[in-house]
Amino acid sequence: MPCVKTRASAPGKIILFGEHAVVSGTPAIGSAVGLRARVTVEDLPGRLEIALRDMGLTVTGFSVGPNGEVISLGSSEEAARAARYVAGVVRELDARDIRVIVESEIPVASGLGSSAAIVVAALAAVSSHMGLDLSVNQVAAQAHGIEKMVQQGLGSPMDTALSAFGGYQMVCGGASPLELPAIEMVVGCTSRPHDTRSEVARVQELRSAYPEVIGPIFQAVGEITRRAIPCIRDGSLMELGTLMNMNQGLLESIGAGTRELSELIYAARGAGGALGAKLTGAGGGGCMIALPEPGRQRDVLIALAQSRGSGFPVKTGAEGLIVETGIR
Amino acid sequence: MPCVKTRASAPGKIILFGEHAVVSGTPAIGSAVGLRARVTVEDLPGRLEIALRDMGLTVTGFSVGPNGEVISLGSSEEAARAARYVAGVVRELDARDIRVIVESEIPVASGLGSSAAIVVAALAAVSSHMGLDLSVNQVAAQAHGIEKMVQQGLGSPMDTALSAFGGYQMVCGGASPLELPAIEMVVGCTSRPHDTRSEVARVQELRSAYPEVIGPIFQAVGEITRRAIPCIRDGSLMELGTLMNMNQGLLESIGAGTRELSELIYAARGAGGALGAKLTGAGGGGCMIALPEPGRQRDVLIALAQSRGSGFPVKTGAEGLIVETGIR
Repeated sequence: MPCVKTRASAPGKIILFGEHAVVSGTPAIGSAVGLRARVTVEDLPGRLEIALRDMGLTVTGFSVGPNGEVISLGSSEEAARAARYVAGVVRELDARDIRVIVESEIPVASGLGSSAAIVVAALAAVSSHMGLDLSVNQVAAQAHGIEKMVQQGLGSPMDTALSAFGGYQMVCGGASPLELPAIEMVVGCTSRPHDTRSEVARVQELRSAYPEVIGPIFQAVGEITRRAIPCIRDGSLMELGTLMNMNQGLLESIGAGTRELSELIYAARGAGGALGAKLTGAGGGGCMIALPEPGRQRDVLIALAQSRGSGFPVKTGAEGLIVETGIR
Repeated sequence: MPCVKTRASAPGKIILFGEHAVVSGTPAIGSAVGLRARVTVEDLPGRLEIALRDMGLTVTGFSVGPNGEVISLGSSEEAARAARYVAGVVRELDARDIRVIVESEIPVASGLGSSAAIVVAALAAVSSHMGLDLSVNQVAAQAHGIEKMVQQGLGSPMDTALSAFGGYQMVCGGASPLELPAIEMVVGCTSRPHDTRSEVARVQELRSAYPEVIGPIFQAVGEITRRAIPCIRDGSLMELGTLMNMNQGLLESIGAGTRELSELIYAARGAGGALGAKLTGAGGGGCMIALPEPGRQRDVLIALAQSRGSGFPVKTGAEGLIVETGIR
């Protein structure tokens, strides 16, 4: 009997401008990028299994127990975390008799929306395979709920919105799409994972201790975000780079920088010839983004490699959720 | 005949908080530090000579011509620049028949007030040697005038005030003394000279282009400066370090940082265990300052050396101008 499969993929994301300040109500801009999580679902009568590939993880199997608990078949902590997101999807849909295979190009625990992309792709693939017909809006909303549940209350609506819809999103309270053209960028990752929850808490403490300092800093971040939108629209890359560099300093001022991030940022701006570079996401580890001169992505990648960073060429405004059904 | 000498010394300075923003009227704090320029004047009938020692310069002689011009006896550009300040003093006082020997521990072109310290010490030593009785106030005012003349209109009143009076100075419009206790710090210098004039011009251009971004940034810098004063007074070093780190990020945001400065700053904070670190002065090169944990200056110096920086242990609030007359 030929095995029928369903496959879905969803992109990771970067925050271009406004991280941290967004918690206090100033706008932030995020973009889907062409690093994707791919989920394949196939029939597996009488069993329920999750297999993870790539993501720097070894191929690993998980079983989901009768009460929805993840039973690890020997694995790393990171793989177990990724499996919990898929288990959340499986439980939400009350799915059974399937194998869910997750493959992802998105580095984990790096602020690139790896978990949102896995949840969105898994939710779409599993629900399609079950014959459920969820709209993209429904996938985005349900995925956000599952991410929040697995992360015990934490989860940005921007991540799941970008994974589901692709393109750009502006967050200011809720998330709303922005119609902007694609830009060639480079993502550079440090070896240090980041922890959004503790970083956000640290910055909010700083804000309570120094409201008269952090208030104007967040105001400046908001103004940078507002100035950036027409620059992306018009392809004013020089100015966009200047705005990224200013935003980076403001992120440093609230303690979101690290030595490793700073090294990659200066490597990109210096030898890499980037027009601008900044950390992306909560900071304290994780990744940075750089805006190369047109056609010079490779120069930035070389400079990052020379500074012990993992670099990925990406395009912003990448396509959102893609579902393929009835694959044999 | 025993040779009668007059000797004067004056300290260099660091800016603790508020550089760049001070140009727009927010307060800045500077402090004299225990790196000094020493000037010795001795009789030399029928001649007028300037000799420079240390400062990373070879011992070099200069003669001053009949119209006050400096005649180099073979020297570096840096030594010639230092000699021009002394020549400015000699001309101002119409001095003759002396040899002026300049020795300095203050790195040149580094934002540490090397030229102000040389002018203040030379003015005091030469005027004393001539039997003129200038008050410290007169030395500070005249030295500022000479520095501005040699630098073609540029010259911070803070530099000459700190070299003359020592201690701390608050600049907000004019300079006024602040009564605060000494703190152990470390100064770390990159190999790259800095150029105050071009850095200030660059930041003011950025401010014209992005007033709604730079305005709040300068406002935040001013608030940091205000918060720092009670911290220095009460010895709240942890908080002082946090404020230094915040100020550093804001200096990065206006483009005053460099890769080398960032490396030294992260080395001091990381392996050096410093409570805070920031660039000092205009940036774009020059030096940084770090606040060690009490008794741990050495750890910071080692971390800076490991990152190819020149480190100097210093105390803030150092003594100002010291004059010794009638030395044989």
